[in-house]
Amino acid sequence: MQFQDWNEDSFVQYLADNFQANGSIVGIGDDCAVIPVKDSKALLITTDALVEGIHFLTNQITARDLGYKCIAVNVSDIAAMGGRPQYAFLSIAIPKTTERKWACEAVQGIKDACEKWNIQLLGGDTVGSKRDIFINVTLVGSADAKKIKYRHEAKIDDIICVTNHLGDSGAGFKAAQEQIPESADRTYLLKAHFHPEPNPEHGIWLASHPEVHAMMDLSDGLDCDLTRLIKRSQKGAEIELSAVPLSDPLKTVCLEYGWDPLEFALTGGEDYSLLLTISAEAFKDIQASFRDAFGTSLFAIGRIKAPPMEVSYCHHGKAVQMHYKFFDHFQ
Amino acid sequence: MQFQDWNEDSFVQYLADNFQANGSIVGIGDDCAVIPVKDSKALLITTDALVEGIHFLTNQITARDLGYKCIAVNVSDIAAMGGRPQYAFLSIAIPKTTERKWACEAVQGIKDACEKWNIQLLGGDTVGSKRDIFINVTLVGSADAKKIKYRHEAKIDDIICVTNHLGDSGAGFKAAQEQIPESADRTYLLKAHFHPEPNPEHGIWLASHPEVHAMMDLSDGLDCDLTRLIKRSQKGAEIELSAVPLSDPLKTVCLEYGWDPLEFALTGGEDYSLLLTISAEAFKDIQASFRDAFGTSLFAIGRIKAPPMEVSYCHHGKAVQMHYKFFDHFQ
Repeated sequence: MQFQDWNEDSFVQYLADNFQANGSIVGIGDDCAVIPVKDSKALLITTDALVEGIHFLTNQITARDLGYKCIAVNVSDIAAMGGRPQYAFLSIAIPKTTERKWACEAVQGIKDACEKWNIQLLGGDTVGSKRDIFINVTLVGSADAKKIKYRHEAKIDDIICVTNHLGDSGAGFKAAQEQIPESADRTYLLKAHFHPEPNPEHGIWLASHPEVHAMMDLSDGLDCDLTRLIKRSQKGAEIELSAVPLSDPLKTVCLEYGWDPLEFALTGGEDYSLLLTISAEAFKDIQASFRDAFGTSLFAIGRIKAPPMEVSYCHHGKAVQMHYKFFDHFQ
Repeated sequence: MQFQDWNEDSFVQYLADNFQANGSIVGIGDDCAVIPVKDSKALLITTDALVEGIHFLTNQITARDLGYKCIAVNVSDIAAMGGRPQYAFLSIAIPKTTERKWACEAVQGIKDACEKWNIQLLGGDTVGSKRDIFINVTLVGSADAKKIKYRHEAKIDDIICVTNHLGDSGAGFKAAQEQIPESADRTYLLKAHFHPEPNPEHGIWLASHPEVHAMMDLSDGLDCDLTRLIKRSQKGAEIELSAVPLSDPLKTVCLEYGWDPLEFALTGGEDYSLLLTISAEAFKDIQASFRDAFGTSLFAIGRIKAPPMEVSYCHHGKAVQMHYKFFDHFQ
């Protein structure tokens, strides 16, 4: 059996079965591992790899954006549990034919991201590669242990929310691949893909509310990630498609090129929005306070249901079937 | 300028110049970063990448040995500062053509290593790769902050020591490449290369002695790593070649194939012995106690000198020049 017959989740499950965390430590299965350190403080640790030819092409993303992004995707994982990013460790494997200028620009992008989120890069490994560039970042953050949010705490009737428009990144990826003509909308979508901006302040704020039950980040698309969340919570979920927030540039570009914006929103991945569930009673208040705090919306897109542990979709209340092909890194 | 014109140390220096650690935190330049956490405890964090075609070939190393080795090389870094390994984070990028059996065996090797050193694997990232396998491990350890050993503390007249024979791993790599016939000596050398056994107990024990001044692990060969240590310490060093410990299998195989054992010892890399400097007055006592504690030797191989910051070599007291080509991952 080749690796293509095994998807990312089944490999992660295989690892989780082989490596079970002990005691008060949380291991595989959430966005970060959680290690209690002192009083009520805990460390959050996450790691993410970006591989040339799989996650990026050097003729599409600039070195500086790539450097920025390799930090940003990890910041999103720390934000997803309500933590503040602190220390980064970089491993980078570079073929000898790579231009030194490229490497320096990638470092500049990493520096931009570290300065933006006040992260210290404390170490790493710089090695050669035969053919492809490989970048791995491990990010350490801190959180109040009692406030950390996990994937397994969703409760029936919780409102499912996201903190940002969905699908922009996936459409940006397609716009780059298909080389559609320059426009402000195209630039907006490309930026969502090549220069993601997770917001740990959103995560920390949401984590401070006990009525926020489960939380994670959206890295592999709403359908895939929400399925993970409800499986961990042993619940079901229903999404109202008309409530999924789509940006104006996404809608405009999709209309022009005959693309389906919902396909990007549900399966595109790399949105780095937060996905969370909030007690139905508290939702309105939290949504209003969130707007007061950040000037942006918490978008309600569905409800947590009793099992089966599946995501079902409806449109203006009427059940619909989705038939998208979902992305898997191994396929 | 291409990356081949830039070596690993100059890239690390470029990173160190761009990312300076603040306050009580130690960043780039030692085997691990050091983060104070509570009372006198500190976390040690290190990360190491292994890349197919650069660090390993799948037709030479078994998946299980590779899994074991990717943990072991990081254990060596934690040991080098006197810490105890605790938590591991694995990123693995695998092409879809890789056999699932290979991945399961690699996981088994990781598990063997985690069980041996009582490490919990708490997370990671499993992704696809276009062509080559990449494995990155970040390892978190703990240490008594006051006892941690660094590279910059070597003092003039310190005795330079190693905790193991040198060169076995480099010779094992060559023996595998040249496919020399089966023998017990060949098996011994191959095991040194494919299944390294760093010993954190050595590091913790040595770190508990204030007379041990500087310490690091030997991953890139004695010449390269000692040069790093003395540059950080702003000292010089003199190595007595007749005192460099060589194993019997290394000597036997080198004699048979006309190889130079000292070339492996000085430049071969991946020995994962500890390299340390001890106050000359305390050396004999520490050497005797080390033997009592572990039943193995601390080998004295030279002395720390005043600058220039170079490693010089002598043979039975007479200065000699070395003309080996030293390994660089980027070349």
